[in-house]
Amino acid sequence: MSEKVVVALDAMGGDYAPVETVKGAVEAVTEHPEIKVILVGKETEIQSELAKYTYKKENIEIVHASEIIDMGEVPTKAIREKKDSSLVVAMNLVREDKADAVVSAGSTGAILVGGQLVVGRIKGIKRPALAPFLPSEKGFSLLIDCGANVDARPEHLVQFAQMGSVYFENVMGKKNPTVGIVNIGTEEEKGNQLVKETYPMLRDCPDINFIGSVEAREIVRGGADILVCEAFVGNVILKFFEGVALTFLGCIKKGLMSSIRTKLGAVLVKPALKGLIKTFDVSSQGGAPLLGLKGLVVKAHGNSKSKEVKTAICQCITFKENSINEKIKEMVQK
Amino acid sequence: MSEKVVVALDAMGGDYAPVETVKGAVEAVTEHPEIKVILVGKETEIQSELAKYTYKKENIEIVHASEIIDMGEVPTKAIREKKDSSLVVAMNLVREDKADAVVSAGSTGAILVGGQLVVGRIKGIKRPALAPFLPSEKGFSLLIDCGANVDARPEHLVQFAQMGSVYFENVMGKKNPTVGIVNIGTEEEKGNQLVKETYPMLRDCPDINFIGSVEAREIVRGGADILVCEAFVGNVILKFFEGVALTFLGCIKKGLMSSIRTKLGAVLVKPALKGLIKTFDVSSQGGAPLLGLKGLVVKAHGNSKSKEVKTAICQCITFKENSINEKIKEMVQK
Repeated sequence: MSEKVVVALDAMGGDYAPVETVKGAVEAVTEHPEIKVILVGKETEIQSELAKYTYKKENIEIVHASEIIDMGEVPTKAIREKKDSSLVVAMNLVREDKADAVVSAGSTGAILVGGQLVVGRIKGIKRPALAPFLPSEKGFSLLIDCGANVDARPEHLVQFAQMGSVYFENVMGKKNPTVGIVNIGTEEEKGNQLVKETYPMLRDCPDINFIGSVEAREIVRGGADILVCEAFVGNVILKFFEGVALTFLGCIKKGLMSSIRTKLGAVLVKPALKGLIKTFDVSSQGGAPLLGLKGLVVKAHGNSKSKEVKTAICQCITFKENSINEKIKEMVQK
Repeated sequence: MSEKVVVALDAMGGDYAPVETVKGAVEAVTEHPEIKVILVGKETEIQSELAKYTYKKENIEIVHASEIIDMGEVPTKAIREKKDSSLVVAMNLVREDKADAVVSAGSTGAILVGGQLVVGRIKGIKRPALAPFLPSEKGFSLLIDCGANVDARPEHLVQFAQMGSVYFENVMGKKNPTVGIVNIGTEEEKGNQLVKETYPMLRDCPDINFIGSVEAREIVRGGADILVCEAFVGNVILKFFEGVALTFLGCIKKGLMSSIRTKLGAVLVKPALKGLIKTFDVSSQGGAPLLGLKGLVVKAHGNSKSKEVKTAICQCITFKENSINEKIKEMVQK
């Protein structure tokens, strides 16, 4: 593989593909010339989008794929049958070592299944985990797992804690990040069966900085750098956060626009509230990595615009430069 | 029992007891003379608080209890050993039919255990459930269960849906309220083992208006009137909401106070934002009932002030007047 960080982008995945995916790719290679993006998808469509921009030809390549996996398709079926879909072709580029990473804003289920079936798990990893950053008062916490593989076992959660620690440390540059398990109380005897069984295993795990249970009330206060939970719970937390944030901001907007008086006030307070909106913008951290695979797979939000696509592509640099996958391998296989 | 609605108030439970509990009791009987409150706790302390107010003597009575259950105590142990605690004495008043309801802002765990051991379950009810109202764009949704009895079985969740429907219909005055199960996708095959097993049982349950899965993103948009979930998930949703709401409002406040410009603007937008704050105030609905017991048990928030205590006491009127417990019995036992 070249010295460049090569990112295979599922150009057809997401609500605004291929317009915003292609735009995001151009923005990424313009900002970071050390990146090469392989745009995977329908060649003529991608070509006509690309024609809008000026960029260094050696930084963008097109690989044709004739099919598209839609949001509503059953993931396993789609991955198995649509061999020439943009997602599967992009993932094969990683499998064949022609790319370092795949970025897709397409179907989460298909990305999770494709990650396991096409890219493949790191030896020793029992279950890959989707790990988005969740905004908090202190910055960001990594919520692991938010994927679609529910009903995890304690040994899965321990690996989530290990992988999450490696990822957080290298991406956020914080040594020995704290790990908490999402729970309904802070005492060790609290929790459901899974949490009760996992707690002592996390406490005794030498590689991580386990600080115990984190109540849901403390999550947004930054109760721990890495929040370990089973995927059903993680998914509920992530989606609930998105819903609440949207509703809150919508209500503020509506309130501020409700009269001439408030509209005047809005002009004055806008800069201050913009900070709030930025703080609670789930998409500001680009995509969520699917940790535990042989290559990097990044899931960008379905409604990503070029900015989010660009961020998701650029975060692959850190992943490669810090050899995060090699470090995960070392931790799990020792 | 008298014609009045008799509420036994745990006068010693909560962060601001007995000052705010006694004040709340006086406010309740002043606003609703059809209520009689029995203040349970240390008589001299209650007396000296009561001395501050004017009220009709026949509407407030004191029953002495020498002990207090603290927040940190192990619930089962506390309920079994502290027979003369304000909570246990208050619950015994319901058990002995001397009161219609118990209201407490004390330890949630102790209230749940006491509810089962002292007040007792309705025949046929497998597990009582704590069911707070969660604010949404459309009003309120009932989140059931948020208690401490985790790892529920499908048949528990079906009863939660039934009890929640009766409660919602009678308290909110909405016929045939919608029931959704909290899930990570809307398709029937989505979810963890528990949800997959529960889904068809809810679909086939004739007494409820089941509308399928509700994704966490839709909760705050009012995706269903009654949101059925296992207690671990419900607890996470409730606490997470509280944390996010507090943090959001804190950030807005901080932003508005950050400069002279924003302070000026704040004066203009304040009335509009007050509406927002009220909408997302978890405590505005008073307490959460523990449904499925032989009498009504209401858990008020630990940091309740007199206003919340008053609301929790007053909601017992609707419960008695609409014979909610009798209706739950009928539904479960038929």
